[in-house]
Amino acid sequence: MSSSEIRAGDDLLLFLDSKRTFLVKVKKDESFHTHKGYVSFNDVIGRPFGGTVKSSLDVDFILFKPTLSDYLRKMRHATQVIYPKDTALIVNYSNIGPGSRVVEAGTGSGVLTSALAHYVRPTGKVYSYEARTERIEKARKNIERTGLMAFIELKEGDVTQRIDEENVDAVILDLATPWLVVPLADQALTVGGSFLSFSPTIEQTVKTTTALTENAFVNVETVECILRRIKVKEGQTRPETLMIGHTGYITRARKIQQTKLP
Amino acid sequence: MSSSEIRAGDDLLLFLDSKRTFLVKVKKDESFHTHKGYVSFNDVIGRPFGGTVKSSLDVDFILFKPTLSDYLRKMRHATQVIYPKDTALIVNYSNIGPGSRVVEAGTGSGVLTSALAHYVRPTGKVYSYEARTERIEKARKNIERTGLMAFIELKEGDVTQRIDEENVDAVILDLATPWLVVPLADQALTVGGSFLSFSPTIEQTVKTTTALTENAFVNVETVECILRRIKVKEGQTRPETLMIGHTGYITRARKIQQTKLP
Amino acid sequence: MSSSEIRAGDDLLLFLDSKRTFLVKVKKDESFHTHKGYVSFNDVIGRPFGGTVKSSLDVDFILFKPTLSDYLRKMRHATQVIYPKDTALIVNYSNIGPGSRVVEAGTGSGVLTSALAHYVRPTGKVYSYEARTERIEKARKNIERTGLMAFIELKEGDVTQRIDEENVDAVILDLATPWLVVPLADQALTVGGSFLSFSPTIEQTVKTTTALTENAFVNVETVECILRRIKVKEGQTRPETLMIGHTGYITRARKIQQTKLP
Amino acid sequence: MSSSEIRAGDDLLLFLDSKRTFLVKVKKDESFHTHKGYVSFNDVIGRPFGGTVKSSLDVDFILFKPTLSDYLRKMRHATQVIYPKDTALIVNYSNIGPGSRVVEAGTGSGVLTSALAHYVRPTGKVYSYEARTERIEKARKNIERTGLMAFIELKEGDVTQRIDEENVDAVILDLATPWLVVPLADQALTVGGSFLSFSPTIEQTVKTTTALTENAFVNVETVECILRRIKVKEGQTRPETLMIGHTGYITRARKIQQTKLP
Repeated sequence: MSSSEIRAGDDLLLFLDSKRTFLVKVKKDESFHTHKGYVSFNDVIGRPFGGTVKSSLDVDFILFKPTLSDYLRKMRHATQVIYPKDTALIVNYSNIGPGSRVVEAGTGSGVLTSALAHYVRPTGKVYSYEARTERIEKARKNIERTGLMAFIELKEGDVTQRIDEENVDAVILDLATPWLVVPLADQALTVGGSFLSFSPTIEQTVKTTTALTENAFVNVETVECILRRIKVKEGQTRPETLMIGHTGYITRARKIQQTKLP
Repeated sequence: MSSSEIRAGDDLLLFLDSKRTFLVKVKKDESFHTHKGYVSFNDVIGRPFGGTVKSSLDVDFILFKPTLSDYLRKMRHATQVIYPKDTALIVNYSNIGPGSRVVEAGTGSGVLTSALAHYVRPTGKVYSYEARTERIEKARKNIERTGLMAFIELKEGDVTQRIDEENVDAVILDLATPWLVVPLADQALTVGGSFLSFSPTIEQTVKTTTALTENAFVNVETVECILRRIKVKEGQTRPETLMIGHTGYITRARKIQQTKLP
Repeated sequence: MSSSEIRAGDDLLLFLDSKRTFLVKVKKDESFHTHKGYVSFNDVIGRPFGGTVKSSLDVDFILFKPTLSDYLRKMRHATQVIYPKDTALIVNYSNIGPGSRVVEAGTGSGVLTSALAHYVRPTGKVYSYEARTERIEKARKNIERTGLMAFIELKEGDVTQRIDEENVDAVILDLATPWLVVPLADQALTVGGSFLSFSPTIEQTVKTTTALTENAFVNVETVECILRRIKVKEGQTRPETLMIGHTGYITRARKIQQTKLP
Repeated sequence: MSSSEIRAGDDLLLFLDSKRTFLVKVKKDESFHTHKGYVSFNDVIGRPFGGTVKSSLDVDFILFKPTLSDYLRKMRHATQVIYPKDTALIVNYSNIGPGSRVVEAGTGSGVLTSALAHYVRPTGKVYSYEARTERIEKARKNIERTGLMAFIELKEGDVTQRIDEENVDAVILDLATPWLVVPLADQALTVGGSFLSFSPTIEQTVKTTTALTENAFVNVETVECILRRIKVKEGQTRPETLMIGHTGYITRARKIQQTKLP
């Protein structure tokens, strides 16, 4: 099938092993250098995705068409990005899907923004707010590579001060003071809509929970996802020695009744 | 908005608190009995979703429009169903989204089937195999309530013996002997497609991992998600005393190269 | 060996399986009734510890000489008692051993008191404070059964107000407001001595940590021990489904320099 | 008190912070160099333990009398040593205390050996077997520094082939093939005595459990201790980001009935 044939201009994931992968753009007459030798793109063009190519040091690289996860993992970021385990729970708990309208803040590097856009396609929209101007352009570059920009509106603004949208299905926060957003989230959400917040510290979680119970929210719950990687091999099976012990807490809630707008 | 007004025939979630909710169908002149008194549906009809109603014992119930999560939580099931934490990771790791074509087995009660269908809408499809005939009709009833049947094909069959589809984006397994499915999953998957398997025991995980590494798969990884619920309240914050300590391991892998069909 | 022969007046652990054990006193001409029939003590007297006896329903019970763990597990208690996993860490972190002098509060049911006494034998002492008079006599009964009373001094008193001892090797707390004890613990401890506190909530832990860093303590650390039980059986190995998700946090610190007593 | 005054020849723990400590021997006219300047021992001699000294770069070091934990943490070791969390559970589960007689294997670097000796003092004994001759002398040096050698007998030998002792209170194993030791452990243990084994992999645990249930053991249980360090600070409280995810499984069992020696 022609669509599975690699062409100049395509994005490509060069895969050596689970921990060593490279996301590159295929360019005629150029090559990509690794510690295992260089890969000549002319050797790659015309091959099928999923096949292999040999580097100049005779090492095999698998040629994968990048998935969304690959793009997200390779996004440039200034600060800590959200992990797949937490993105997964946020998406699940928020009840969003194709067609959902979502307010998200802060945009950060655009990792969570892209993931949300992936799931609300093709008829939904992610309204992503970021207060720091310089971050927005960086996020835009990251997101454009994923091809999901059509489902995202990047907005400069501080969601503790202003949320333009109404009747959205979910408000999803990854910022320092989520409790200050709760009254505006209440106004922006449709009845039954989901509030989700990710915070590294327990004190943030307590303040957010208190704000939610003082506003029109029920079903206020906080969880933490501890992900253990298991080294699986006959006779040597055991959880990995080093692990990420904590990323953050996820607090969720469900909005009740219509908010009386002043 | 008229769509937010409750009418006879609507599904309704009566919400008392996070642990006590009731999924009912609104029927004119009838009522629903709980340990906190009965709710007369005639009192409910015409009210907005997200509002409240008083039971005969003067207890407030919130009137929610059910979400997919509500339907999944209330599905009738004969055996252990998959938890949201595991569904969330399976969806995330599989890279599926709107438009994806997925093979799933076994159908079981239809919980995972429905969740997958929710995300591949409106142009994707879930081909769900179940070997036990009597289960299929029960799953169909569960799924029909969610309104997602249009995106699902329920198939009677044993995926260790036969998978009809080709070039699917993901093969997702929750059955006793996933390692026996690996060769057929290899043939069914598109290059770069995702293999996902959920298993309660470590021995199943070892056998599945061995089978994957002996077939055309790379990036073979196993994780376990430990979800901790936190009781958050100023001055009393702590993880909950009792928790679900284990549900199962999730093994994932990525298919390389075209399989030569015989 | 005569010491391994069971005699009237001995304590005895009747062991059916890991979850069903009975701690009894052997009495001539009497019997002990269980849901698996009764055991006649006359059948038991003269048998060796570690042997078995048949109940009236022909069920085998193993005849164990009780260990300290057996006594601790069977102690009568009004409130939550400390778990072996937490006792184990407290003993290890406190650096106590034979000969150590330890201040402990509150006595509670005497479980932790007995465990500490077990390790400071034969030349050390546990000074155990309890503010509620009625608890002291109950604890005394529990402790007397273990035979460890000679190494314990039960004291009525509130350690936020008064600690009589000086130059003790460790101060070990399991009470509601450990941060209020920190200044007196500082005075009671020998230089290099260990402060240990067990608290269920994170807010208690934060207050205690703050108090320690404001007094003469270094090496202030908080840990939580999550114990997973594994069901081990060829082909069915997996962590247990239900687990204790949280008991409490353990905060420890080490005292520096001599405190100037006023 | 003169015993708290530091003298030439004393062991000393120079404490900068929880992660930077140095275990040294005080030598007249000599000094100890660190990245924070050197400490002149002549400045140290005559000061009290628990006081401080300034380095040549004017940095304060606290002067602690080393505890057993300090010695164990600083022991030289060729291979992975057992962590305090696991030592703590092994000691607790084994029911040992002052006066207990314990068989341990392999000696390794002597960390667990020393910890066990600490608790069986002053009348008990640890019989520690090591099959590799070169390890024994290294372990001896480590142990001698702790002052616990009087309570330990280091023995060269392979416990899968021979255990000399009888009627011991506990057999404690940290070696590659614990299941091969089970029949000899059965013969060496007193009735009601404790079998304890620490193994990194699940396959070792399964084999050991099978061997125990086929010999004269009951109460066979396996646990894993997951220790989480919490960063506690008002407004910034959270579990630490990086953690040790796995060290090993602890399997325990209790011996029943007299073994018929051939």
